[in-house]
Amino acid sequence: MQETPKASRLHIAILGRRNAGKSSLINALTNQKVALVSDVPGTTTDPVYKAMEILPIGPVMIIDTAGIDDSGCLGTLRVERTMSVLNKADLVIIVLEAESGITQYEKALIEGIKVKKIPIIGVINKTDKITIAAELVMKWSKEFNIPLLPTSVKNSQGIEELKKLIITYAPPDWQGPPVIGDLIQAKDTIILVTPIDSAAPKGRLILPQVQTIRDILDHDGVTIVVKETELKQAIQNLRKLPRLIVTDSQAFERVSAETPSGVMLTSFSILFARHKGDLETLVSGVKNIEKLKPGDTVLIAEACTHHQQADDIGTVKIPRWLQKKVGGELNFEWAAGSHFPEDLSKYSLIIHCGACMLNRKEMLHRLSEVTNKAVPVVNYGILIAYINGILEQALEPFPQIQRILSELN
Amino acid sequence: MQETPKASRLHIAILGRRNAGKSSLINALTNQKVALVSDVPGTTTDPVYKAMEILPIGPVMIIDTAGIDDSGCLGTLRVERTMSVLNKADLVIIVLEAESGITQYEKALIEGIKVKKIPIIGVINKTDKITIAAELVMKWSKEFNIPLLPTSVKNSQGIEELKKLIITYAPPDWQGPPVIGDLIQAKDTIILVTPIDSAAPKGRLILPQVQTIRDILDHDGVTIVVKETELKQAIQNLRKLPRLIVTDSQAFERVSAETPSGVMLTSFSILFARHKGDLETLVSGVKNIEKLKPGDTVLIAEACTHHQQADDIGTVKIPRWLQKKVGGELNFEWAAGSHFPEDLSKYSLIIHCGACMLNRKEMLHRLSEVTNKAVPVVNYGILIAYINGILEQALEPFPQIQRILSELN
Repeated sequence: MQETPKASRLHIAILGRRNAGKSSLINALTNQKVALVSDVPGTTTDPVYKAMEILPIGPVMIIDTAGIDDSGCLGTLRVERTMSVLNKADLVIIVLEAESGITQYEKALIEGIKVKKIPIIGVINKTDKITIAAELVMKWSKEFNIPLLPTSVKNSQGIEELKKLIITYAPPDWQGPPVIGDLIQAKDTIILVTPIDSAAPKGRLILPQVQTIRDILDHDGVTIVVKETELKQAIQNLRKLPRLIVTDSQAFERVSAETPSGVMLTSFSILFARHKGDLETLVSGVKNIEKLKPGDTVLIAEACTHHQQADDIGTVKIPRWLQKKVGGELNFEWAAGSHFPEDLSKYSLIIHCGACMLNRKEMLHRLSEVTNKAVPVVNYGILIAYINGILEQALEPFPQIQRILSELN
Repeated sequence: MQETPKASRLHIAILGRRNAGKSSLINALTNQKVALVSDVPGTTTDPVYKAMEILPIGPVMIIDTAGIDDSGCLGTLRVERTMSVLNKADLVIIVLEAESGITQYEKALIEGIKVKKIPIIGVINKTDKITIAAELVMKWSKEFNIPLLPTSVKNSQGIEELKKLIITYAPPDWQGPPVIGDLIQAKDTIILVTPIDSAAPKGRLILPQVQTIRDILDHDGVTIVVKETELKQAIQNLRKLPRLIVTDSQAFERVSAETPSGVMLTSFSILFARHKGDLETLVSGVKNIEKLKPGDTVLIAEACTHHQQADDIGTVKIPRWLQKKVGGELNFEWAAGSHFPEDLSKYSLIIHCGACMLNRKEMLHRLSEVTNKAVPVVNYGILIAYINGILEQALEPFPQIQRILSELN
């Protein structure tokens, strides 16, 4: 329970042939399993996600692809599996064997990764078995334009250097903008409004709320957490007005009515649309609900497979709102968990959840797939804010995006 | 990430022979795996913990003992495994087969559970295979003084009745006292002080902090979350003083200095010592550190196996403090995770962690094992508060326990 959220970890994919020593390299990176936090076993051809601490890098998600490397050529299924891994990877480590070096297999892999613009670190492993000439390493490194590091897990050689390379090559923007930290100043008060409805699991806060509180703490702010029913009184008890109020989307209307003038209001969904994805793309898609006609097909995508409640937002509330608005039946399709359809062309609109279970890289990948097909996309929170007529207000902390919204037609 | 904490779920152990249909009964209870939240596989002789939603009961932890039932008699190893399950179980369901009924095996099991004072529900399963006379069911029920319910998973018979029995027979006090809810009134402001040190995982709050915020929300209160560095300013910004300040134990001294007179101060550790265990027992143990002599053996027990930091509280800080106090070397032993020593007699003192990964039942079991052996026991937070001379103040919300402390010598 004390772990960094999986989706907030630097995702490092380890690729290479089975005999290249990927598993032992992973163990060496994490100090012989001492730091192994969790291990979700996949099926034979599924990658395994390992939440780990690599000191001094911090919490990472190692994507162990041992299951998708079981022959020398890139078969169709394995290419697909590899690509699905690359959609989530912030960084790729290709493990080469000193004996065979860079073969056709690794060449194809490197080219494929470069197309995706993911930083690559090459590791020439098992240098205890065969000495590799420094000239050859430099020649390869130049030829493929990637850093190449000789390692020997057996002799613990190159492991510390590899950690340094990971820090150097991790994309500087992999974490995205902070949840809220750049919107506040030290000692600011921020009020978070968190309704407790029947869908709220006992004894918990949902992840976006926890992450927002933590980000405010990390930026020396003061967080007030209230239900919508205690908001008014909490504001009245303050000598100095809060900098910002953040509410759950479903309470937006009520909270908006109680927000003092001069205090900015936004929603967790909007903060996370920015933190985890691309606020501009998602806001740009919203007015397309005005163009929906009865009979159109709409995709609703949820990244988690949660236990559905009677009044579930994705399966009940949003369809009801949209059909009322359109004045007729729409064809809804749902995608859940890691499944996201290949063929997006049939959709008139895609509505995505807040993506708290996806890492930023994967959410950005989904958004680019969607926009490449020119399909409009929006997320739950932005859609609800728009339907309730409060999206413009909720974008106050982001004046540039507010302008984009006002210019849409 | 949206799950109810495992330790806060009603723990239901399912016991019975392998062929009695335990697994299919579990599936039927949870609607054919639809509600299955997580599944931690154990080894052959380990029970499997399944976090599930059983509607309308809510979040439960099913302890599936399929691995410890593999012969007709109670072998030594299986007795041990069964007992370790019973130490955590709030409720036991014994699954009997209609064909064989209550044999010597079930009789021994029922007697063993009764000694532990755990409520039992008997289920006579597979009534589709053999009709069982109502008279026989009543006779057994009377003889063993447990409710007995005929079920047939195949025909979906008795499943809804079983859920009702679970609600009826769950011990009314299994959740223990609330974290904080009974100490506050609606619209009260409570300040939580949560230092962010190097041990705090990125992007998270620790579980006790999250549970406290949630409990305040559930009781219509207003929570302010701050680091110790922003506390002063947060208090100054309030028109009406907070009802209570709750701090991480490590910041107690500083927070105590900044707490206005008339405002009660306590720590997360003390709240959770009460919520998860027995505050009286833990406070009663604390003055035994005055009696420790060089060479004494001290057990430090942590329920989670976390990644150890340089200045780890259980392995570094507490031993340092105690040895300084005693003025010599102590023999420290450590127990981690679910391991807790059988032989407690050699310890002069047992120091337990906050137990956020244990359920209340198991923590109470550990405490009773310890007190049965007349070994003094204390937990991290109470020990730290005592060493820092602020335990008495931190017990202000609990005047009865405060009195017990003052009467100790």
